[in-house]
Amino acid sequence: MDTGTRIEQTLEAALAAGHRQNCPPLLAQAMRHAVFPGGARIRPRLTLAVARACEDADPAMASAAAVAIEFLHCASLVHDDLPCFDDADMRRGKPSLHKAYGEPLAVLAGDALIVLAFETLAEAPARRPQSLGTVLRVVGGAVGSRGGIVAGQAWESEPAIDCALYHQAKTGALFAGATMAGAAAAGVAHQDWRGLGEKLGEAFQVADDIRDVAATPQELGKPCGQDAAHLRPNYALAHGLGPAIAHLDALVLEAIAAIPDCPGRQDLGTLIGLTAKSFLPESLQRRAA
Amino acid sequence: MDTGTRIEQTLEAALAAGHRQNCPPLLAQAMRHAVFPGGARIRPRLTLAVARACEDADPAMASAAAVAIEFLHCASLVHDDLPCFDDADMRRGKPSLHKAYGEPLAVLAGDALIVLAFETLAEAPARRPQSLGTVLRVVGGAVGSRGGIVAGQAWESEPAIDCALYHQAKTGALFAGATMAGAAAAGVAHQDWRGLGEKLGEAFQVADDIRDVAATPQELGKPCGQDAAHLRPNYALAHGLGPAIAHLDALVLEAIAAIPDCPGRQDLGTLIGLTAKSFLPESLQRRAA
Repeated sequence: MDTGTRIEQTLEAALAAGHRQNCPPLLAQAMRHAVFPGGARIRPRLTLAVARACEDADPAMASAAAVAIEFLHCASLVHDDLPCFDDADMRRGKPSLHKAYGEPLAVLAGDALIVLAFETLAEAPARRPQSLGTVLRVVGGAVGSRGGIVAGQAWESEPAIDCALYHQAKTGALFAGATMAGAAAAGVAHQDWRGLGEKLGEAFQVADDIRDVAATPQELGKPCGQDAAHLRPNYALAHGLGPAIAHLDALVLEAIAAIPDCPGRQDLGTLIGLTAKSFLPESLQRRAA
Repeated sequence: MDTGTRIEQTLEAALAAGHRQNCPPLLAQAMRHAVFPGGARIRPRLTLAVARACEDADPAMASAAAVAIEFLHCASLVHDDLPCFDDADMRRGKPSLHKAYGEPLAVLAGDALIVLAFETLAEAPARRPQSLGTVLRVVGGAVGSRGGIVAGQAWESEPAIDCALYHQAKTGALFAGATMAGAAAAGVAHQDWRGLGEKLGEAFQVADDIRDVAATPQELGKPCGQDAAHLRPNYALAHGLGPAIAHLDALVLEAIAAIPDCPGRQDLGTLIGLTAKSFLPESLQRRAA
């Protein structure tokens, strides 16, 4: 089964399991709206790619980790879009969740996806019982108040922002969680995989800044120019488009160099180079080339 | 150490661990505001009482389960108070979280407490590695979209509400989670403990209805008459105060009768009788007597 199919099927199965028992119908629909159709599924692909590069000793746990990471990513998008944050009307080319289902169900669908992420981990038939605790700590750390994505979003409420800490928490933490969870699911030392994830998160953030400045709303499925509108730091705004693209390319090379020794190191490097290309829409790649 | 102290110290330790690493200061303060000072801590007390009645083979896991249940309870109060739900100004005698810290930090503190609950479970030094998965599934089920408290709150967004399913999810599920998590932490069959929790949840809901109708705002630390204002079903409004109090007493006796065979059955029954008394403020008990 190809990776994309594996991810969509596991997301589908976890959501369906979540909705068989006493789930209010509109909540179930709202959760599906948040998860399908997805974006590029970059983070769960990364989890599975790392697990595979480490010989994927426990594929069910790797799949569960990948899907947990994606549920948490989707939950963060739903809550970030709320009127009290970005007040976004569109996401992935369709109405944002609170526009489609109202604010109460947007808050609740986000909460429910956070819980479902952890339930999905708990329900994976782990080959080694110890691995559940490790994967859980890695995933929890990537999203919680200790430098995870919730902390990242919360920096926007502080009177002063440490920009590096902000991006590291808001974007880097979940990428690092994705690589470390793949390693932890495969039973190898997950800390060695933090550097790759952080570097890729940094690259993704620069790509996101470039997209916000240079892509069209059609390419993004959401409005552009949001960083300028919300006075958020943006690398491409600060340094210009050309230097931003050069910086992105350098970060991807640094990420590939940060892959720890493992049986599938070379294939993983190739895959990451290809994945990084998808960080920018095709038209922007052509314009950049 | 007495139970109250054990709960407060474990909550304190888990929050402090959550805030040492890269937590934005206002988020850390908002999370504390949501957790301290607490209410009666009924649910974590129940978890510890059940674990003790089952000989508490793994006290660290029981404490972690109790604290996870309380964090999830606090998170649900924070999100339920938001303007898009109850729009509550007061909670536990002080401003609700979004009144004190703004809506963005209220959404994020709720999210962060949900994640911290699961991290606290993952970080407990479990004596048996298998018990983490069981406790996690029990706790996740109590709060998620499959009949947990998120599902309960989401029923309010449906065009038609099944009243029994609504109360079971919104209140009963976390009480059942509290009893089952205590049993699971102690390594005994947790499903046997669902009935006690559900019955106690039902009793607590009737007491909540009575309080909303008959207590003063000073006794509750929040406004009364909210069910009538929000057109929510209320047992005491529907049947009158006297019959509601008689129904509450009967439910507590049914709960005590539902305690499974276990070494501490008699002490647990006594404790539950005493706990149920605390469901109503003292002045209301006097008025009811």
